[in-house]
Amino acid sequence: RAHTLTVLFILTCALGYVTLLEETPQDTAYNTKRGIVASILVFLCFGVTQAKDGPFSRPHPAYWRFWLCVSVVYELFLIFILFQTVQDGRQFMKYIDPHLGVPLPERDYGGNCLIYDPGNGTDPFHNIWDKLDGFVPAHFFGWYLKTLMIRDWWMCMIISVMFEFLEYSLEHQLPNFSECWWDHWIMDVILCNGLGIYCGMKTLSWLSLKTYKWQGLWNIPTYKGKMKRIVFQFTPYSWVKFEWKPASSLRRWLAVCGIIFVFLLAELNTFYLKFVLWMPPEHYLVLLRLVFFVNVGGVAMREIYDFMDDPTFRRGRMPCPWCWTYWFGTCLQLTVSCDPQEAPCREGPLPFFLQAGTVCCVCCRDITLRYKEIRRQKQEHRHEQDKCLSNGDGHSALLDEPNGNKPRERKL
Amino acid sequence: RAHTLTVLFILTCALGYVTLLEETPQDTAYNTKRGIVASILVFLCFGVTQAKDGPFSRPHPAYWRFWLCVSVVYELFLIFILFQTVQDGRQFMKYIDPHLGVPLPERDYGGNCLIYDPGNGTDPFHNIWDKLDGFVPAHFFGWYLKTLMIRDWWMCMIISVMFEFLEYSLEHQLPNFSECWWDHWIMDVILCNGLGIYCGMKTLSWLSLKTYKWQGLWNIPTYKGKMKRIVFQFTPYSWVKFEWKPASSLRRWLAVCGIIFVFLLAELNTFYLKFVLWMPPEHYLVLLRLVFFVNVGGVAMREIYDFMDDPTFRRGRMPCPWCWTYWFGTCLQLTVSCDPQEAPCREGPLPFFLQAGTVCCVCCRDITLRYKEIRRQKQEHRHEQDKCLSNGDGHSALLDEPNGNKPRERKL
Repeated sequence: RAHTLTVLFILTCALGYVTLLEETPQDTAYNTKRGIVASILVFLCFGVTQAKDGPFSRPHPAYWRFWLCVSVVYELFLIFILFQTVQDGRQFMKYIDPHLGVPLPERDYGGNCLIYDPGNGTDPFHNIWDKLDGFVPAHFFGWYLKTLMIRDWWMCMIISVMFEFLEYSLEHQLPNFSECWWDHWIMDVILCNGLGIYCGMKTLSWLSLKTYKWQGLWNIPTYKGKMKRIVFQFTPYSWVKFEWKPASSLRRWLAVCGIIFVFLLAELNTFYLKFVLWMPPEHYLVLLRLVFFVNVGGVAMREIYDFMDDPTFRRGRMPCPWCWTYWFGTCLQLTVSCDPQEAPCREGPLPFFLQAGTVCCVCCRDITLRYKEIRRQKQEHRHEQDKCLSNGDGHSALLDEPNGNKPRERKL
Repeated sequence: RAHTLTVLFILTCALGYVTLLEETPQDTAYNTKRGIVASILVFLCFGVTQAKDGPFSRPHPAYWRFWLCVSVVYELFLIFILFQTVQDGRQFMKYIDPHLGVPLPERDYGGNCLIYDPGNGTDPFHNIWDKLDGFVPAHFFGWYLKTLMIRDWWMCMIISVMFEFLEYSLEHQLPNFSECWWDHWIMDVILCNGLGIYCGMKTLSWLSLKTYKWQGLWNIPTYKGKMKRIVFQFTPYSWVKFEWKPASSLRRWLAVCGIIFVFLLAELNTFYLKFVLWMPPEHYLVLLRLVFFVNVGGVAMREIYDFMDDPTFRRGRMPCPWCWTYWFGTCLQLTVSCDPQEAPCREGPLPFFLQAGTVCCVCCRDITLRYKEIRRQKQEHRHEQDKCLSNGDGHSALLDEPNGNKPRERKL
């Protein structure tokens, strides 16, 4: 199924074509570029056929191996950039797209924060319309996908809220973090992110209730059935419902904290990298990077979850290539964007607001956690009592468990 | 055992050091070099911890994963070179070692071919002493290692003899292929290669008879035993005796032909690459390349053998990363060295001698094969009769099998 021989055959033919039939141009810069692109393509071919398989198998295991290899290439690129000066790094982007490498025009989201501006006679709500740009659907889709990755209402909301606190705290470093209060809390957290998370949770509950029966395409008699089967190839093979249970043990609590931390870091990196490397936000590379990060992050999250859930846990035995690249990529982005020579990191440490906000968030979270955990234990206790009363009817207890979870999630 | 977390931790620390404590130099060329070296190192770290395991596990699986990653890096380098002009490729070697990129002095091994030269009064055998240079031990060790890779007396001898035919046939392209007849047949084939193959076969029979009992180092009581255990860590975990049986089926016959072909190609590449890229034969990169090729080739050979021997053979399911890189690397070297603009490939096609020699070799080989196969079948038939006579004593038949093989190998 890996089509190793096919890929090798095609590559060998391509080599023969390049060598024998094509005249090598005399332009060294062009040849260098072509050589690097060809190296990357061959590496991807090698990786897609030979890399390790991950936990996901739909639409095809090769799809996930592809993203793993892309992440390796992306990281090697970041390392290369890391060793350049900031000026060289920015100019290097010109090799990828000649339009890059020019300073960004600044767009200030703050400024006039009146929702109803009586001074503007033609359209008093013009401030709101101004802020309704391409980032509204971007926020929505981003959070929809992130919810599919994290698969937990509560963790998504925590990350979404904490990120707004981070924006408040870092607006002295990155000017486009300064937004109006209603842009922060109403448009971002409640409308865009909240709606994305809600739709994500709906999809999750559909995926977890869907029946997973995979029969071969040729065994399906009707045309409609065949089409449905093709579409369903893009849905997961089976579904694992994440129950992070952060308050159940110290290890899980630390893991959830770590995940939230890395997630927030990855979010911030998006903005800092754009700022440092002079990437316009609407550039296709920015979007590609997000697509890639959602894919790799999704597998990494599943790997961490499996790892946490594995009772035969052993230190040092963690064959998680996606986690590896996700974490290392995040670190790399951080270090690239925090070059102490030029980057905004110079412009002062975190202000008091961030510290206070973080402490509040952590406290709130821990109180909620404790409360949830106590209630869960009580519920389980009650279930066990019910079970004992109904003479050990294990089936009803199993059915109650997921139903018992849902109202808890809605309430939060 | 993969020490993923340790490696990640060290890498993260290194990143922190590079970013925060080190001032980025302003020299773009130096930065570029450093960036590329760092990218390669990080790729190796990723690969050593996360690549697939192969069939070998001694001294450590990470050792073999390391060579797999090195082969990928080497191939990406070759691809890059492939897209350059020959002049640029040669000058590119200067980035690796500033002494490279200069034309090679030619050393002619032909010329005066008298074994006893009466014209030279002081030392009539000076022609022989002239030819006894560093390549004599190189030939010996090379064939010793190749015998360990192929594990078959007959295939090794075929390849060794055919390579001399190739040298005869290609001496109009590569001047250092032109040697005296006694250099070809006595010094190379009989003395160096023959002795190497003989020692290799001796080692093989020791390895196949050795008992493979792996107890932990701390359970061994004596000091001498501990030392022995540490040394034995560098011997294989268990030993598989290769029996290629090329005449038993068409698939096996084609596979053996393919292996011989690829081996000869890889041998030739060593010389052509040196010639095209102006590498002096005693340069450390040439030696490194051979070390690397022996490692990768060894695993690839085992992978092919396992694949051939696997009764559940299915087309397209060949997860053989080492084979992949070995074959692709060979192709790449061929294409790099056969750049039609400059390389010696221009200097005319293969002469009649090669065609005649190849036909002779193939015929000889096939006659030997047929003869061996018929004898083997007869022997097996006799064994079965013996077995029936001794009322199905399976044990003696099993013991006879390896003993029955040995005289056959010696006789050839």
